[in-house]
Amino acid sequence: MDSFELLEEKIGYRFKDKNLVKKAFTHISFSKSSENYEVLEFLGDALVNFMTVNILVEAFPNKKEGELSQLKSFLISEEFLASLAKSLNFEKYILISKGEELKGSNKNPSILCDVFEAFWAAIYIDSGYDCKLTKSLFEHHFKSQILEMVNSNSLKQDYKTALQEITQKKWKERPIYNVISVEGPEHRKTFTVECLFKDLRTTGKGNSKKYAEQEAAKNMLQIIQDNEKKKT
Amino acid sequence: MDSFELLEEKIGYRFKDKNLVKKAFTHISFSKSSENYEVLEFLGDALVNFMTVNILVEAFPNKKEGELSQLKSFLISEEFLASLAKSLNFEKYILISKGEELKGSNKNPSILCDVFEAFWAAIYIDSGYDCKLTKSLFEHHFKSQILEMVNSNSLKQDYKTALQEITQKKWKERPIYNVISVEGPEHRKTFTVECLFKDLRTTGKGNSKKYAEQEAAKNMLQIIQDNEKKKT
Repeated sequence: MDSFELLEEKIGYRFKDKNLVKKAFTHISFSKSSENYEVLEFLGDALVNFMTVNILVEAFPNKKEGELSQLKSFLISEEFLASLAKSLNFEKYILISKGEELKGSNKNPSILCDVFEAFWAAIYIDSGYDCKLTKSLFEHHFKSQILEMVNSNSLKQDYKTALQEITQKKWKERPIYNVISVEGPEHRKTFTVECLFKDLRTTGKGNSKKYAEQEAAKNMLQIIQDNEKKKT
Repeated sequence: MDSFELLEEKIGYRFKDKNLVKKAFTHISFSKSSENYEVLEFLGDALVNFMTVNILVEAFPNKKEGELSQLKSFLISEEFLASLAKSLNFEKYILISKGEELKGSNKNPSILCDVFEAFWAAIYIDSGYDCKLTKSLFEHHFKSQILEMVNSNSLKQDYKTALQEITQKKWKERPIYNVISVEGPEHRKTFTVECLFKDLRTTGKGNSKKYAEQEAAKNMLQIIQDNEKKKT
């Protein structure tokens, strides 16, 4: 494990209570007592969610709630938060049992994501619950990465990922894609793909399987979001 | 509709931008343009969640993450937030189409909850994104109600409600309870109840159906929380 000083320097925050930052990196397998990251992660989850939503609402005052929700579900996903944790080499600081270490758990996206959230809660508590300071530090480090991600075509157009994030989060299930037809001559094939989720079915057409899947996912997202709206 | 001044007085906050508070109370049926509460509610959802978790973590530093999660899922439930909205007569301020008004939608817990969240986002934005001010206002009005709710036996022991909140939120499904046996003499009956959720089954025994259901729900909660843990 590296000393935390390097990380403090990188982040630009010096912890008054060094136990707090240690706690943020301590997995339950390393300490079953309350000296692990679980409660910090509970607070950090709410904090990171709030700071991320904040960035979105400030940066895109004209986007609709549906689009913002879709962006958020990617930006607070395990996958994305783990990537932010990795960008600061968080895996080097994780305290974990030998058994878990051998399994490579310190590189497990779920644990990296937990630690990332716990770390921000630790700064927040250590600074005397100073939301403004924590938010400005978070934005200093990640706002540009977040906005870049939002503006990149990859996120904008990746309806399959967005759909899966939503269905996993809400129902712990994934949609299924099937190619149902391939028509036309070799050089101008048209693929039709169906997307199945619960009792819903959408289709998409395109000149590649990938493109047809994106279309089907986009249509499914639309239906799910309309259904959620109707519940209000 | 009452003027907002009365509400501002009650809350102890004077809006610089009166359109913002109006927007927080405007349902999409009243204004399809962006002048409705949808984006504010998106921000407010994250804000109220964060402020609530904050209160819990500060007030109960020794509770475990599992118990805090359980408390949180009740405290940010539609039911509870709508009750806070009602305590400030929010239904009087909601701007909604005539059609929705006739249906009584301004008393719909889902809309009251949305408006409650949007209102706190409106204060937060109006104050120049002042998290500290918003948090202290929120705590001034609701901290004691929240802590009372946590400390009351009703919440502590209502495992059925806690379980349902979690299963509804995560899987949009409710557990099922069946009495499977009633044994013993009339004055000392023992009820056994099963609780079914997805492919899981737990049982509980007690000298009333209600008590046996609570036991079964408590056991189911335990299993679900353990399963969630294992995913980490």
